[in-house]
Amino acid sequence: MESSAWSAPVHEVHSTIAAMADSDRRAALATVVAVEGSAYRRPGAKAVIKEGGDGTGTITTGCLEDEVVELASKVIESGKPTVVTYDLMDDDDVWGLGVGCNGITDILLEPLDASFEPVASAYADDDPVAVVTAVESARDDIVVGNRTVVRPDGSTDEGGQLPISIVDAVADAAADLATNGKSRSIAVPGELVTVFVDGVAPLPVLAILGTGHDVVPLVECGKRNGFRVQVIGFRGGTDLATRFPKADGTGTTRVADLRTDYTFDERTYAVVMSHNFVDDRFAVAELLKTDVPYLGLMGPRERFEEILESYDEEQRRTVEASLGRVYTPVGLDLGGGSPHQIATSVVAEALAVHNDRTPGHLKAREGPIHDRVELGSTGRGP
Amino acid sequence: MESSAWSAPVHEVHSTIAAMADSDRRAALATVVAVEGSAYRRPGAKAVIKEGGDGTGTITTGCLEDEVVELASKVIESGKPTVVTYDLMDDDDVWGLGVGCNGITDILLEPLDASFEPVASAYADDDPVAVVTAVESARDDIVVGNRTVVRPDGSTDEGGQLPISIVDAVADAAADLATNGKSRSIAVPGELVTVFVDGVAPLPVLAILGTGHDVVPLVECGKRNGFRVQVIGFRGGTDLATRFPKADGTGTTRVADLRTDYTFDERTYAVVMSHNFVDDRFAVAELLKTDVPYLGLMGPRERFEEILESYDEEQRRTVEASLGRVYTPVGLDLGGGSPHQIATSVVAEALAVHNDRTPGHLKAREGPIHDRVELGSTGRGP
Repeated sequence: MESSAWSAPVHEVHSTIAAMADSDRRAALATVVAVEGSAYRRPGAKAVIKEGGDGTGTITTGCLEDEVVELASKVIESGKPTVVTYDLMDDDDVWGLGVGCNGITDILLEPLDASFEPVASAYADDDPVAVVTAVESARDDIVVGNRTVVRPDGSTDEGGQLPISIVDAVADAAADLATNGKSRSIAVPGELVTVFVDGVAPLPVLAILGTGHDVVPLVECGKRNGFRVQVIGFRGGTDLATRFPKADGTGTTRVADLRTDYTFDERTYAVVMSHNFVDDRFAVAELLKTDVPYLGLMGPRERFEEILESYDEEQRRTVEASLGRVYTPVGLDLGGGSPHQIATSVVAEALAVHNDRTPGHLKAREGPIHDRVELGSTGRGP
Repeated sequence: MESSAWSAPVHEVHSTIAAMADSDRRAALATVVAVEGSAYRRPGAKAVIKEGGDGTGTITTGCLEDEVVELASKVIESGKPTVVTYDLMDDDDVWGLGVGCNGITDILLEPLDASFEPVASAYADDDPVAVVTAVESARDDIVVGNRTVVRPDGSTDEGGQLPISIVDAVADAAADLATNGKSRSIAVPGELVTVFVDGVAPLPVLAILGTGHDVVPLVECGKRNGFRVQVIGFRGGTDLATRFPKADGTGTTRVADLRTDYTFDERTYAVVMSHNFVDDRFAVAELLKTDVPYLGLMGPRERFEEILESYDEEQRRTVEASLGRVYTPVGLDLGGGSPHQIATSVVAEALAVHNDRTPGHLKAREGPIHDRVELGSTGRGP
């Protein structure tokens, strides 16, 4: 597997799934459906393995990739989905010269054929969905790989393969997971079936209000770290799509039209960096009328104080009621001053806020480093 | 100026300086030599501007770049170094629709000719040096741009243009700045001259002990963020240079030979991620016999505890005496689990340790966000 494809961000994995579902070239999708012990990736981590072995996406840190590629070719050949359990908990293995990835990992392998198109369009849409797939079945009418795409309101997409009783039984969990983007396996009570419910939440959006040179490294860093990135200028700047080719979208607007021209919701992480005092002060006031959980403002603390002082009574009240969402000076305190270092500190801060973390050293964190989704899922790596 | 060249890390700026000093194509070097108020870059920030206007490196967030490019072409034409002061403190400008970069910035512009070769080789070497350049002179025998490369021991390189009395007067400051990589202007008492002392410290090294797929995004993230990156494998892995093309160096060794084959000093930030228990435990013990200020270990807390338990009495004592330098689980607590997100969290942590920062939100930091080098240098951006 080529290394940069291995570390492809989730949006690239999704677009590869869509491309392969719509292609003559055969491929398989590998998904981590359960982990116990210290696994590198969480349930829901995916890799597309094309016939011949090229892959996109990450299942493990490399220790299982060869086995998975081999199994993928069998699944492509047979057309039959399967779940395989890798048990690397063996003490001898840990102590010896083995692969050293301790933990038990269940991986679902499915042929990426036309039956995947509803899933692929679900990924491509910006609507939350849960992909519910049978991973264990003691019933004649359900085989491993049967799946149905479920919306948060409980409705299902065309082509669903699971009985409605199963879908109904997991509908609440599916709605939650579709919204928070997490994934887990559920043994459906009384149904002799275990399904993997893969929550596909829309990616968080990094909305950058500014078009300076310093926006380029921020766009790139945001994309790599799993944000959709939108660049918004206020000065009718030309050629934004050319200047910021990695951005998912670029556009210009008058700052007064900001909230009508663009959507700022609870998934939008906004960074105000027009470097123009008038535009920045207006943008801050407008953005705090929305539900953005994060508003980073480039510039020193004193500049934000000047902005506050420049507001009228009502604007100031609005802004001061939202100071918890205002991050200025923007970024984590890493001490770096180069353009890439500043981008790293800003994206790291947005990630921490998105994941509801207090961004100190992990070594100082109490409890497990991953949010607990399943018993025993406590570690990153090895 | 092309945007990705604008955000070039410092090592690329240095290699461009070396290339242009040794080239027929004419170019100028722009260096921030003093700032007051809220400037985007600190003293020592550099951009190379080639004849025609192509640039590499960052002086401001874009607000002065056009002016600097124009001035650079004059300096290239005249062959005469000059210092120019940009005063963007004007209230009208801040409030109006102007460039909005408030602060006073002094920029030194010099023709990048063959006289720059001693400086270029100083950059290329991994030895600390200070480049001392006259930026103000009321004397007949010294003109703006006269320079001498000074070593921490006070010795000077060939081709020095400044009188020895000036070099001696700033030798102590030069030694400090050469070591910490910071830069500042010094008015030399009684000499009617102000010099800019540009400390060029060797870049910090990110030493990655591991060769898995997950090393690739870490190499790239480390490079962008200003580290020299060394990848070290223990298993005689082939083709490391091909697999990690962005690394400055790759190699394999037996873990027992680690400290003899490689240098680990107070500038080395080590990340242990072989994913092999035996190799990791040996590497941790070996690295803690060196002066590395940072040892990040991939894997959950429990794994490090297992490693500790596996040591004999003496090894355990050595390691336990150094727990302050051990960062495990490695990285900042950002909550991200993708390969790029993990790389971001690790590099962010190494940066914070390198810059002696407590990595919380900048908004919560007491005092200025930059280390104070000159009075009034308090802000990042705008």
